[in-house]
Amino acid sequence: MTKKTVVVALGGNALLRRGEPLEADIQRANIATAAKSIAEIANEYNVVLVHGNGPQVGLLALQGLEYKAVKPYPLDVLGSETQGMIGYILMQELKNLLPEIEVSCILTQMRVDENDPAFADPTKPIGPIYSEEEATKLAKKHNWAIKPDGKYFRRVVPSPLPIGIIENDAITTLINQNHLVICTGGGGIPVTKVNGKLVGIEAVIDKDMSAAFLAKQLNADALLILTDTDAVYLDWGKPTQKALRKTTPSELDKYTFDAGSMGPKIQASCEFIKNGGTFVGIGTLDAGLRILKGEAGTNIVAE
Amino acid sequence: MTKKTVVVALGGNALLRRGEPLEADIQRANIATAAKSIAEIANEYNVVLVHGNGPQVGLLALQGLEYKAVKPYPLDVLGSETQGMIGYILMQELKNLLPEIEVSCILTQMRVDENDPAFADPTKPIGPIYSEEEATKLAKKHNWAIKPDGKYFRRVVPSPLPIGIIENDAITTLINQNHLVICTGGGGIPVTKVNGKLVGIEAVIDKDMSAAFLAKQLNADALLILTDTDAVYLDWGKPTQKALRKTTPSELDKYTFDAGSMGPKIQASCEFIKNGGTFVGIGTLDAGLRILKGEAGTNIVAE
Repeated sequence: MTKKTVVVALGGNALLRRGEPLEADIQRANIATAAKSIAEIANEYNVVLVHGNGPQVGLLALQGLEYKAVKPYPLDVLGSETQGMIGYILMQELKNLLPEIEVSCILTQMRVDENDPAFADPTKPIGPIYSEEEATKLAKKHNWAIKPDGKYFRRVVPSPLPIGIIENDAITTLINQNHLVICTGGGGIPVTKVNGKLVGIEAVIDKDMSAAFLAKQLNADALLILTDTDAVYLDWGKPTQKALRKTTPSELDKYTFDAGSMGPKIQASCEFIKNGGTFVGIGTLDAGLRILKGEAGTNIVAE
Repeated sequence: MTKKTVVVALGGNALLRRGEPLEADIQRANIATAAKSIAEIANEYNVVLVHGNGPQVGLLALQGLEYKAVKPYPLDVLGSETQGMIGYILMQELKNLLPEIEVSCILTQMRVDENDPAFADPTKPIGPIYSEEEATKLAKKHNWAIKPDGKYFRRVVPSPLPIGIIENDAITTLINQNHLVICTGGGGIPVTKVNGKLVGIEAVIDKDMSAAFLAKQLNADALLILTDTDAVYLDWGKPTQKALRKTTPSELDKYTFDAGSMGPKIQASCEFIKNGGTFVGIGTLDAGLRILKGEAGTNIVAE
């Protein structure tokens, strides 16, 4: 029996929990935990795995600023480094749990529109959390845009929409070979076309939007967005807070969600369903397989 | 007509010339130049591209030491980051030159033997060149091994032999789809097996040895080692200096070559020929296609 295909979007914060130091061994321990949940899913589905990279790209950017002998590297190059680092640890941990499955990681460039309005309004948080005072100081020093994130502040960068996966053929070929494919890490390395040539660009693409784009392109059976809350909530943080268990894009259209966290996930989910997808699940990593079976998290389906 | 397959090993120093600062834009310009030569070859051969990463892994190691907020990352993780960075720029430049060819980059783990004698005797140079005085100071401070490299000094790390490519199936699958595949970057991320599980290890595998291993595994028609000298020389640097144009492993066995540069290339070449390979070329990047045609560089063939 052919397994169904699910595109799994794994939050960068699942790989490094809020406030944790960016130590290599902490990241590896978190990735090992994440890999267990992904492996559970991979036993029943063909998994295509898209990971976030917010904290990691932020670390590389900070290291680049601190090391004065060379100028800081641009965000597209830092993004490619995080695809290497996170992809490596994920594929190693997954291979150890799934010795009978081929696991591969494809470096992925994602095309964006150079006229995307996101370039005028940076919204994507990268790097660690700071106090308001510290963030303001750093913003001034490094010419960063910053925005509040809960009670903290983070650096934000432009987050244009994905419009084309350059390495689509490699991804499809390996999926058809029944590989567990890790790709489009950090939403993909952002590139645009100038005079017909690919050129890297200073941005970070939202990995949930890229995962939805990939799921649509692959005609995937499901999109699974794993994050740090167990479901989509109405009135989040208020006494009237209520989890949505099963919903539709038109119901979700009635509400507003936090632009910094749940908002893009809802937008990505609705994009996938409106473009012919049949199932989106949103919830925590450890509930991954149960979310796909409709037993946990929030399920978003067509009308 | 089916094209012949050539594994091309591209030196990390071709991507960043000796003494050049490790700036992102300098590396990109060098990679763009390298891509032109590779594209020329790719028009006539199926190319599998293995790049070095010595200067780049050295930069990341230095940045890690400079940034005090987290402990320096281990060499396997730094190696994976360089596969991301160099792989990305190479694949972008190559795709721009070869719009009709699919170009993909596979993150690659290479298995080594944890009892390899190399762990007791570090020989692989990484990072920038230093004066003897500066190198000695740094070695003391960071507990590095250092060795002379020409009139300069460099940090050296263990360089065990490659014994197995974990992502072999992905590489073969994409080659069979006529992709130009970039893989085994920096010789591959060094891993070993502990209780049957893959574990990253503190080393850098020689990329020429890995390229020869890969060429053998793929039954490639040729191995092409691109470096900064136009041929293999006897009596290198002496008045009696003489280029070898066409030679064999048994002729090469009679001579000794510099362990830090030409030695491993000769060893890798002879390994490939002794294991059934028919052709190795060694020479400069810009002569790549002519070397494969026997018109430049050093050709190494079976007896």
